[in-house]
Amino acid sequence: MAKIWNKGFDADKSVENFTVGKDREFDLRLAKYDIMGSMAHIKMLVKIGLLKKTEEETLRLELQKILAEVEKGNFNLNTDAEDIHSQIEAMLTETLGETGKKIHSGRSRNDQVLVDLKLFFKDEIRKIKADALQLFDLLQLLSEKHRSVLLPGYTHGQIAMPSSFGLWFGAYAETLVDDMHTLVSAWRVANQNPLGSAAGYGSSFPLDREMTTRELDFETLNYNAVAAQMGRGKTERILAFSVASFASTLNKLAADNCMYLSGNYGFISYPDNLTTGSSIMPHKKNPDVWELIRAHSNRLQSLPNEIALMTTNLPHGYHRDFQLLKETLFPALEALHTLFEMTHFMLSHISVNKNILKDEKYRYLFTVEKVNELVLQGIPFREAYKQIGQEVQEGTFAFQPVLNHTHAGSIGNLCTNEIRTKMENAMKGIC
Amino acid sequence: MAKIWNKGFDADKSVENFTVGKDREFDLRLAKYDIMGSMAHIKMLVKIGLLKKTEEETLRLELQKILAEVEKGNFNLNTDAEDIHSQIEAMLTETLGETGKKIHSGRSRNDQVLVDLKLFFKDEIRKIKADALQLFDLLQLLSEKHRSVLLPGYTHGQIAMPSSFGLWFGAYAETLVDDMHTLVSAWRVANQNPLGSAAGYGSSFPLDREMTTRELDFETLNYNAVAAQMGRGKTERILAFSVASFASTLNKLAADNCMYLSGNYGFISYPDNLTTGSSIMPHKKNPDVWELIRAHSNRLQSLPNEIALMTTNLPHGYHRDFQLLKETLFPALEALHTLFEMTHFMLSHISVNKNILKDEKYRYLFTVEKVNELVLQGIPFREAYKQIGQEVQEGTFAFQPVLNHTHAGSIGNLCTNEIRTKMENAMKGIC
Amino acid sequence: MAKIWNKGFDADKSVENFTVGKDREFDLRLAKYDIMGSMAHIKMLVKIGLLKKTEEETLRLELQKILAEVEKGNFNLNTDAEDIHSQIEAMLTETLGETGKKIHSGRSRNDQVLVDLKLFFKDEIRKIKADALQLFDLLQLLSEKHRSVLLPGYTHGQIAMPSSFGLWFGAYAETLVDDMHTLVSAWRVANQNPLGSAAGYGSSFPLDREMTTRELDFETLNYNAVAAQMGRGKTERILAFSVASFASTLNKLAADNCMYLSGNYGFISYPDNLTTGSSIMPHKKNPDVWELIRAHSNRLQSLPNEIALMTTNLPHGYHRDFQLLKETLFPALEALHTLFEMTHFMLSHISVNKNILKDEKYRYLFTVEKVNELVLQGIPFREAYKQIGQEVQEGTFAFQPVLNHTHAGSIGNLCTNEIRTKMENAMKGIC
Amino acid sequence: MAKIWNKGFDADKSVENFTVGKDREFDLRLAKYDIMGSMAHIKMLVKIGLLKKTEEETLRLELQKILAEVEKGNFNLNTDAEDIHSQIEAMLTETLGETGKKIHSGRSRNDQVLVDLKLFFKDEIRKIKADALQLFDLLQLLSEKHRSVLLPGYTHGQIAMPSSFGLWFGAYAETLVDDMHTLVSAWRVANQNPLGSAAGYGSSFPLDREMTTRELDFETLNYNAVAAQMGRGKTERILAFSVASFASTLNKLAADNCMYLSGNYGFISYPDNLTTGSSIMPHKKNPDVWELIRAHSNRLQSLPNEIALMTTNLPHGYHRDFQLLKETLFPALEALHTLFEMTHFMLSHISVNKNILKDEKYRYLFTVEKVNELVLQGIPFREAYKQIGQEVQEGTFAFQPVLNHTHAGSIGNLCTNEIRTKMENAMKGIC
Repeated sequence: MAKIWNKGFDADKSVENFTVGKDREFDLRLAKYDIMGSMAHIKMLVKIGLLKKTEEETLRLELQKILAEVEKGNFNLNTDAEDIHSQIEAMLTETLGETGKKIHSGRSRNDQVLVDLKLFFKDEIRKIKADALQLFDLLQLLSEKHRSVLLPGYTHGQIAMPSSFGLWFGAYAETLVDDMHTLVSAWRVANQNPLGSAAGYGSSFPLDREMTTRELDFETLNYNAVAAQMGRGKTERILAFSVASFASTLNKLAADNCMYLSGNYGFISYPDNLTTGSSIMPHKKNPDVWELIRAHSNRLQSLPNEIALMTTNLPHGYHRDFQLLKETLFPALEALHTLFEMTHFMLSHISVNKNILKDEKYRYLFTVEKVNELVLQGIPFREAYKQIGQEVQEGTFAFQPVLNHTHAGSIGNLCTNEIRTKMENAMKGIC
Repeated sequence: MAKIWNKGFDADKSVENFTVGKDREFDLRLAKYDIMGSMAHIKMLVKIGLLKKTEEETLRLELQKILAEVEKGNFNLNTDAEDIHSQIEAMLTETLGETGKKIHSGRSRNDQVLVDLKLFFKDEIRKIKADALQLFDLLQLLSEKHRSVLLPGYTHGQIAMPSSFGLWFGAYAETLVDDMHTLVSAWRVANQNPLGSAAGYGSSFPLDREMTTRELDFETLNYNAVAAQMGRGKTERILAFSVASFASTLNKLAADNCMYLSGNYGFISYPDNLTTGSSIMPHKKNPDVWELIRAHSNRLQSLPNEIALMTTNLPHGYHRDFQLLKETLFPALEALHTLFEMTHFMLSHISVNKNILKDEKYRYLFTVEKVNELVLQGIPFREAYKQIGQEVQEGTFAFQPVLNHTHAGSIGNLCTNEIRTKMENAMKGIC
Repeated sequence: MAKIWNKGFDADKSVENFTVGKDREFDLRLAKYDIMGSMAHIKMLVKIGLLKKTEEETLRLELQKILAEVEKGNFNLNTDAEDIHSQIEAMLTETLGETGKKIHSGRSRNDQVLVDLKLFFKDEIRKIKADALQLFDLLQLLSEKHRSVLLPGYTHGQIAMPSSFGLWFGAYAETLVDDMHTLVSAWRVANQNPLGSAAGYGSSFPLDREMTTRELDFETLNYNAVAAQMGRGKTERILAFSVASFASTLNKLAADNCMYLSGNYGFISYPDNLTTGSSIMPHKKNPDVWELIRAHSNRLQSLPNEIALMTTNLPHGYHRDFQLLKETLFPALEALHTLFEMTHFMLSHISVNKNILKDEKYRYLFTVEKVNELVLQGIPFREAYKQIGQEVQEGTFAFQPVLNHTHAGSIGNLCTNEIRTKMENAMKGIC
Repeated sequence: MAKIWNKGFDADKSVENFTVGKDREFDLRLAKYDIMGSMAHIKMLVKIGLLKKTEEETLRLELQKILAEVEKGNFNLNTDAEDIHSQIEAMLTETLGETGKKIHSGRSRNDQVLVDLKLFFKDEIRKIKADALQLFDLLQLLSEKHRSVLLPGYTHGQIAMPSSFGLWFGAYAETLVDDMHTLVSAWRVANQNPLGSAAGYGSSFPLDREMTTRELDFETLNYNAVAAQMGRGKTERILAFSVASFASTLNKLAADNCMYLSGNYGFISYPDNLTTGSSIMPHKKNPDVWELIRAHSNRLQSLPNEIALMTTNLPHGYHRDFQLLKETLFPALEALHTLFEMTHFMLSHISVNKNILKDEKYRYLFTVEKVNELVLQGIPFREAYKQIGQEVQEGTFAFQPVLNHTHAGSIGNLCTNEIRTKMENAMKGIC
């Protein structure tokens, strides 16, 4: 199978290996979308008279066969194929001859890749949405289940105020809504049809781009051909930022878990087979999974910056540099999925310690509560504060682990349903 | 004026200088929002019975006086005030005594800062929206004005296909729509009321948080008190990412300008007073402004990563680390505004070279066009390609700088209105 | 005072403000080095016959006067001076007329800035070396002072093995040696003379660059004129990396301090005026200074990446973008100095808890010790391990906080002198 | 093969997959060093009486057998081995029973990994040194070969001053010396023996760490056991920074090549099989290899930041997070090697255009030369400048592409030998 740009020379093997890079591996994920894009394209070519209806039918049949192989997992890139696009074209040409070649009329490799990526990213965004929702559901469930189990709340890393497992789990659920907003922005950027922008400057063929937009179920077009090409890098980065945003939430959750699992806290525990330990140090249960979630989520957080470095200071127009964005972003999308999965798996097995606040060191957690109580009884704040301060100094402050928090979003009023409604509203932006 | 947390000791001067940092400078921008937050808070305190109506009126009057000073630019932070919040409280206490202190009932420094920041960010987002729209308008205007001036289009940095100034300017307009989507996500994250989350764990006062949400014109609440506190860092980072996204567009525009202004291109020019030069090298016009826009936009692109580094691996709850986010983000918001201003200023003075394509080195730009033309006349692509290839080899290929691009988003069909509609739709997400 | 590049036009005020940026502020720090560079340059001009000896003397006298003003702190940049170099040149011209202008013969603004920066960086590196050494000394002193106070050692954030304050303080001292190695690399890169590279391509004047190298006490030259200009950005980044390396050490030390100060650990304490607290929560002592050191050191760690973003993908040769590196790096150098100062200040006041290991939760720290003890007595490891495991299971494991660690770098053998020798050897690379 | 930390439970398969990660792949590279470390360790165990001489001999023989397999490329990690260390231990135990287990006396997994990594990094640093030297040699050769071919030099991206291919190639050679200084710092940090630090807190065995230091040919020790463990992350980052430093040089060289290859410059060319083109656009030769070098070098430049994100804000002591550093750094080391290889390959085939300066657009390059010439003839600069300025205005300026640059590092005096001496001196730091 000859390189598309072959000019009678064989590129040195080392050049080929270097320029193909990991495309053969990553492009497999694009196979399905490449075929979808081609089907829409040839249908449009018929409409504008560049392809006969019968040719389109022949091509479509062949594309469907390849798609079936892809879906069965039987499709592989030949070692002499430069990328997925070359391979499919070669397969069509092998089977259909001259007709196979016609699929490329009015299309360039550039807009073909662009449309494949946009379709792929849309599906990936849907998967992230589903992953996030699944975690959200579990967090809300845990929040309700453990709503009355109290925890010390920390500020500056210091024991500060009463909190609860209800608040803790629920907080992560609600924070996922913020991340979801970033995913919506990635969706809106991905949901635009670049097909027809050719090599980034449009073409003289009378392409019907609105038609392919409808066929491929895009919300709108990347109209301007130069803008469509400039979407390369930008689309990846906006998606990468959303990945990083979710990752930062998982990072904090992992940091919390590592802390809560430490012998100096002991707020939660996991079954022995989900931690690693030592038989001579029975309380040592290493939170390896959470440590690795913490580390992986940091790698994901570095992603937008990596993309920025690869694309900055370059003028508009296609640069081969963009090829490497696949190598950067694709594994990150997989990694995010795994992190969601492992986070969900771990939390499904969490046990919470119900007696945390019995420990002496948390006795002063309730001083602020007590002051507020006195204020609500009509005693001026300053006086109430003085009175409790004196009790503390004299060691007579009585430990009262009873709380009456009622406002929206407090220990006694978790607003689980309101938060769910926020999430549902946010998710409407992605379909 | 005493530190709020003063315990009878004077913190060493060096500690004070270090911990206050640049807060006195940056907090000035929060003064207005701090007063707005306080007004909503005291109104709510009346409703839940923690403040008398008359006390609220006295406080409101005093707050309005301070606000008037702020708006006149007469408000400054005392060198002994730790931050804006301390100073306003101290001013109220000085004037109103005991009543002045009551403003802090049911509120902590943490949720006070959070609400100030959210209100501030909302206004900043509105400014970015306005800046971006102003640039968008100019770019669309320039796109229409120079729609028929042709340019060489580059791929791989190589002369490739015909393009036009219409496409070029229009592309940057459309790309701003993508950036606007990220700004919408920042808006949605900022547009949530954290007031009432106290020190990050809620309180035992029966606060009416829905009321302050309406008063402060937030769309919804950060319900969960822990989530509200977790918004610190996340809100900044999502906003920073949008800043970075716009910055990446300005960076590419600056890179293009630097290239087009080079003597090796000569596609555009600016008045002499907007470039720097040398009388003995008359063609040397250094694009200093664009080089600095390019560099500044790179600094802005580094922002989300800087915030990630400052917040990662930390468990939930307030950490003093967050204070530094102001020092990182506030100047960046100003810088973005300046970049928009300078970009707009420069483009307002751009001249485009109308004779670019007369240069011999662009003669092969039209080979693809010519092939397509033959194809549209019914000649098979392969044959057309061969024919033109031969003309090129033989040096007989005739240069025809006439284009007939008609599809959506091409040189002859810029879709200026459709792109404007996209922008208007995107901007609806921010009000 | 006219702009050097003035061509009869006045650059628009906004352009001037934007292009000058913060140079007037940052350039003050370069004044001294600019004068040093000029003195070496004119001495060399005499040697190669481009300046008369008497002219040099006149110029040197005038430069010394300006230097005296700089050293007295009386020197300020005029608001109409573009930068430090323009101002000094203008001052000379004002006083000395035609002779004043001659200082610029055989020199370009580019190599003038380059040499100023190299000289400035050399002094900054010397300061960092001194700061690091001062902290090193204190850490070694604390290590020896508290050598016998035991601490729990953590792995995976879990209580694991016995450690000591001797090990802890000593570890940070030794780690500073690693950072010092990076500072040596920055020194070697800075310690090369770029003067004479002109605008980055050398000149036709028969400059004696070896002479200015000796005069300015550089170790060697940036020989190749293009390489000298390529040093811009690279020198800054290599220095920034060393800054980041030290910052990462301070970050970890700050993270440790925040942890050790938490109520859940309570391993160390600081005087009340160095922490912030609450009279009703007597055990709450917020580690604000350490939290801010942690955050600031993260900003410093982001520095090399910021410089990478600003300089990547640019071809060789001067770009105005480089000007912004001053705005990025100069404040970071100051910040590092402050962090060293605050770290030293805090550690000077640290108190260590001598009874940590009495707490029941650290009882299993010594199981590994006990196993090793049995092994040393000749019992096979497997059997020893089994025996201790059984004691633990049965609750009969006896707590023995006595250690006999003797190997190099262990609790009982801190190798303080050996580490000092390593530091001294490392520091020899910077003079 | 059972997990070392197995406590009778089987860790869930998903946990195992997640925690093992890509270790089985990356650890293969450590096999050799793990065996070297073990050999030194057991020799020392004999000396301190924890192993019999005969046991050591048996173990050594078996280790040599495994090493032979490793060197033949026959060694693979079993799918049930957690990592390289487990596998080798398991192999020894399988063959030698109880004796096999004794290899782990006085050693922990932590210091075992640390020493493997240090040894591995030392070899990798040697490879980078060799790669850099090979490129340096070629650059110096090209610099001398094309020393008299002139080029336009650019400042601000604008045609500015005469330069030459001699300067251009030579500049990259000299810049590699700066990068080499960073590699020396990585070397010095890697060249310290961590073996004996056990789990990061030392041990009660009377280990002879000086002996293993000599055996393993380390320059010195990471004395303090806590410092040795803190070297994890720091060593990687300092090495990563050197990788990034070299990458930034390759990035600039790639950017230059992309520019010089553009039809708007045409300064250099490569054989057709090293570029990609189009038969109907004969002048289009896409610099794909250089674009990919540019992009890959940007990925490498993002590395230190990625490591910073993964390690910041963590207290001292081992965290499982560190495992991921292998996944980040190991492929980067390979990538750097490939970039050196491809850069060398490409430059070996470069052709330079000898007639560049004949182009009319470069005529004003020589104005500064002409001014300097007049100055050297005794005409005051100001007058000379005025005279040439007038010639330029009147169009009478005569184009004289003859240069007489003689100072060190200028077109006529490339200082190739002096630069070579600098490189040789720098490289002495690594042996």
